Amino acid sequence: MADPEYALYYWPEIQGRGEFVRLALEEAGAPYVDVARLPRSKGGGIEAIFRVLRGPLGPQLPFAPPVLRAGKVVVAQTAAILHFLGPRLGLVPRDPALRLWALQLQLTVTDLVAEAHDTHHPISVDLTYEAQRPESRRRARHFTSERIPKFLGYFERVLEAADGRFALGKRVSYVDTSLFQVMEGLRYAFPHSMGALEPRIRRLAALAESVRTRPRIAAYLASPRRLPFSTDGVFRHYPMLEASSAPTRPGRE
Amino acid sequence: MADPEYALYYWPEIQGRGEFVRLALEEAGAPYVDVARLPRSKGGGIEAIFRVLRGPLGPQLPFAPPVLRAGKVVVAQTAAILHFLGPRLGLVPRDPALRLWALQLQLTVTDLVAEAHDTHHPISVDLTYEAQRPESRRRARHFTSERIPKFLGYFERVLEAADGRFALGKRVSYVDTSLFQVMEGLRYAFPHSMGALEPRIRRLAALAESVRTRPRIAAYLASPRRLPFSTDGVFRHYPMLEASSAPTRPGRE
Repeated sequence: MADPEYALYYWPEIQGRGEFVRLALEEAGAPYVDVARLPRSKGGGIEAIFRVLRGPLGPQLPFAPPVLRAGKVVVAQTAAILHFLGPRLGLVPRDPALRLWALQLQLTVTDLVAEAHDTHHPISVDLTYEAQRPESRRRARHFTSERIPKFLGYFERVLEAADGRFALGKRVSYVDTSLFQVMEGLRYAFPHSMGALEPRIRRLAALAESVRTRPRIAAYLASPRRLPFSTDGVFRHYPMLEASSAPTRPGRE
Repeated sequence: MADPEYALYYWPEIQGRGEFVRLALEEAGAPYVDVARLPRSKGGGIEAIFRVLRGPLGPQLPFAPPVLRAGKVVVAQTAAILHFLGPRLGLVPRDPALRLWALQLQLTVTDLVAEAHDTHHPISVDLTYEAQRPESRRRARHFTSERIPKFLGYFERVLEAADGRFALGKRVSYVDTSLFQVMEGLRYAFPHSMGALEPRIRRLAALAESVRTRPRIAAYLASPRRLPFSTDGVFRHYPMLEASSAPTRPGRE
């Protein structure tokens, strides 16, 4: 088999931030290898990620995965990867103004994902969730009551203003596959909060459904390539984090 | 006076994320108006920001400031604004691979800035710092001991690998003005931690100095257009947040 066009380097056991890249590649039907998911005997495993972080692929050192290699290009940072892939995969309009708008929207997705991550890591990424549970409860309460409605309300208005079914208009873009992933992740992590919010974000819900049923996405979701959500990823379901809406002082469990 | 080419919409009393845009415009000597800093009688004040967030400038709704208007283009998200401005201001090479690399580096600056912000807002942006002080202490301790060295160590290696004095090589780019601002902000907020780290990030320190002494940047820094750092911005100096390196349990002050 010839070398596939794209090589993705991302943690092999979680969706995480890499999933936004996987979804774009899958929607486009692009040939890619998810390197760290290969057996170690074929250069896979997390060692593959540590190798690429040390920079042997090129002079442009990545800070963290996901990292994408496409020929001589090696690029990290999810939004930069999607900005690069968009035109190549036909997942963004050619108009530079719309390509910039897609980048802007993806960066707001990035902000939301970082805040979702910090509900289970409000103190440090170098500690386990269990070592920062009281703070997690407090942060999650604000995230579900204030931040999720603010971010998703924004994307709902973006869809309302869009001229068509998708975020950028009539054709699907990587912004849509990203919004699908955000909706899936938030529904998994915070089912009660999302259940209460869904009636106010009907356009977003319809968009997520329309992405889910696209032939290539549906095939991907049904395949073993789609990893399950879990409490190792960016979106985590800890029932305690939305157990009660009553104010809890930090330090109390 | 003719309309200046660029209009920036950002909070008028802080450097914040808008400062990364101001520094790029200043380095290029670009004509711009910092709209919210105008008197209200001339359309300024924070009302100008609320107006642009409601979207009258165009169909592409911004989520939050900074927002830049350049003719018909209205763009938000600091990294997207700089990606747009870079080629127009001569602050990024024309080579698309290097323009992508600049975006990737700026996105890592974005991550660092968000983490710096969360040292004083680890629970919620909708609460004051005073309402989340115990968590702030705990987060700041991890940020100064683990995250600052990790991020700045990364940028130091990027400079080491660069072919020239600047992050992208021989010519100054917006990545350099951003790294200058990061160094200034971290030194203001965490002087002890940065003092201890400086010997290990000599390339970054030299870069910051070389940006500081560029004629247009030096003139800007000496002008009233440069707002001071303060405990209202993204980088905040609260002595308590680096008062002690001894472990403190959450809930204790």
